[in-house]
Amino acid sequence: MQEFDLIGRLAQRLQAKRCDTRQGLGDDAAVITPPPGHDMVVTTDTLVAGRHFPDDAVAFDIGFKSLAVSLSDVAAMGATPAWATIALTTPELESSWCETFMDGAVQAIGNMDVDIMGGDTTSGPLSITGTVHGLVPAGQAVKRSGARPGDLVCVTGTLGDAALGLRLWNTRKQIEPNCDIEWLHGRLNRPQWRNGAALAGVAHATIDLSDGLLADLGHILTASGCGAHIDASRLPSSRAFDTWCPAMDRNRLQLAGGDDYELCVVLPESAYSSLAQRLDCTLTPIGEIRKQKGFRVEDADGRPLPVSDFPGWDHFR
Amino acid sequence: MQEFDLIGRLAQRLQAKRCDTRQGLGDDAAVITPPPGHDMVVTTDTLVAGRHFPDDAVAFDIGFKSLAVSLSDVAAMGATPAWATIALTTPELESSWCETFMDGAVQAIGNMDVDIMGGDTTSGPLSITGTVHGLVPAGQAVKRSGARPGDLVCVTGTLGDAALGLRLWNTRKQIEPNCDIEWLHGRLNRPQWRNGAALAGVAHATIDLSDGLLADLGHILTASGCGAHIDASRLPSSRAFDTWCPAMDRNRLQLAGGDDYELCVVLPESAYSSLAQRLDCTLTPIGEIRKQKGFRVEDADGRPLPVSDFPGWDHFR
Repeated sequence: MQEFDLIGRLAQRLQAKRCDTRQGLGDDAAVITPPPGHDMVVTTDTLVAGRHFPDDAVAFDIGFKSLAVSLSDVAAMGATPAWATIALTTPELESSWCETFMDGAVQAIGNMDVDIMGGDTTSGPLSITGTVHGLVPAGQAVKRSGARPGDLVCVTGTLGDAALGLRLWNTRKQIEPNCDIEWLHGRLNRPQWRNGAALAGVAHATIDLSDGLLADLGHILTASGCGAHIDASRLPSSRAFDTWCPAMDRNRLQLAGGDDYELCVVLPESAYSSLAQRLDCTLTPIGEIRKQKGFRVEDADGRPLPVSDFPGWDHFR
Repeated sequence: MQEFDLIGRLAQRLQAKRCDTRQGLGDDAAVITPPPGHDMVVTTDTLVAGRHFPDDAVAFDIGFKSLAVSLSDVAAMGATPAWATIALTTPELESSWCETFMDGAVQAIGNMDVDIMGGDTTSGPLSITGTVHGLVPAGQAVKRSGARPGDLVCVTGTLGDAALGLRLWNTRKQIEPNCDIEWLHGRLNRPQWRNGAALAGVAHATIDLSDGLLADLGHILTASGCGAHIDASRLPSSRAFDTWCPAMDRNRLQLAGGDDYELCVVLPESAYSSLAQRLDCTLTPIGEIRKQKGFRVEDADGRPLPVSDFPGWDHFR
């Protein structure tokens, strides 16, 4: 298939839905009219085959994840996603692969009002760079730097599922497939990003959990100049995780496992109840921001866990 | 070097200059405040090693081209660039390579008021995805679809230099280096994108010349539903091109050679003089838009050239 044929087909399929998208695919650039009274948040993420998704992941899942990871970043700013671009580099333009890939990307958007307004297709080793633009009321974007001593530390959803899914992916030929395992693989390959719009003007600091709780919460602590006390026994876990995670690996996967794309939310205790009601997922308090820098992570018996054993994810290590 | 160390150093170096950049590198997403009364244009391009730049290109040139190609797309919309992101995938994060790469990207921006507001670094085969955001007065973005019969077809600068530079790159071990050849290589590796702000509200259609004049003008003709008559003897050429291009290859390189990143501008004849004065480069009339679809390209003696011999660039061919 020729590049321009594919672009033409995608342009037809990805007709703009938003009235503030003036020009979608098919020109030198997309044209949008950002609404007044809003700030725009912009984030870009590259996924490389064999590193950010399994070499044998299916096209649908690759497409899904290529937007989900950036949609999650937009959520972590308290913004509502509005526009996306996808730059796809692939060894060959195989029509059905590309269409299924795009099905996945569209599925990641779900029922949100997001236009895929542009992109690029190039020939090379498989990788995808997604860029997502979101909107947030002016001045209300939630940064990493606003955590204050006494704030609650919360997380959405459950932790450790994607890391366990990855481990089971690597050993999946020895395990009979079942619903739990497929669900855990889904958490790895089709991460359900959270809608973060309710965080704007409420949360003091937020980050999305791509590299693991300790690594990512660490960025908030560094940017905010404070520390945190985490109760490992309060970390939320899924039924599938509880069933399949060996007890000895539990803390490591929940504290340092990446790819969950849940949100870590730091907020004043007084704001917790109303925010928890407005989110479309659970919001679990797991600890507190402290004035003294550094982490203290305790187990259910109040014993400190050795956090330095659980480094975050560094793509180049 | 660890990924976060590099990001920290780049964030320090790429401090935001624009007052409407609320948050640059260092959070989940950048935050900007688009000015009222403007549309935003957004374009994204991936460069893959060995395909969009020579495998042995230097870091500075790769950085330069990674933004220049998207800055050129923004110019082709009649917009002024304002913000950029760079997603760099590289086999290893080598500090001095990355700094030199970033020097090149900053050099491509030149004296324009553009903030590099975000990006990503990942490990994998060398490729770069740049995304550039520009601003244009509301409703004045120049699309491909506005060409009308009788309009002049013009191009900025000179054509064929990059294609000749690529040919000489491949044979450069047999040629003694000299100023001309180095200039032609510069045209290939550090394309000087044009400032297109003056086109807004004036040009009927514009496209930037990345795939070759015939292929790119062809997109305008398709989108506008018309044809064009081009006088090949009027195609502007550089002194270095005139000196080094074999006569028999001249038409092919000027009509079908990619990577010049000049602008092809379609505009009413009455607007030509004032626009030519407002651009910071030459603007040469090379033909006319015709009602009848298709190309007619004539040589100096009025004989038609066989345009189907000169296909455009398809990355997957």
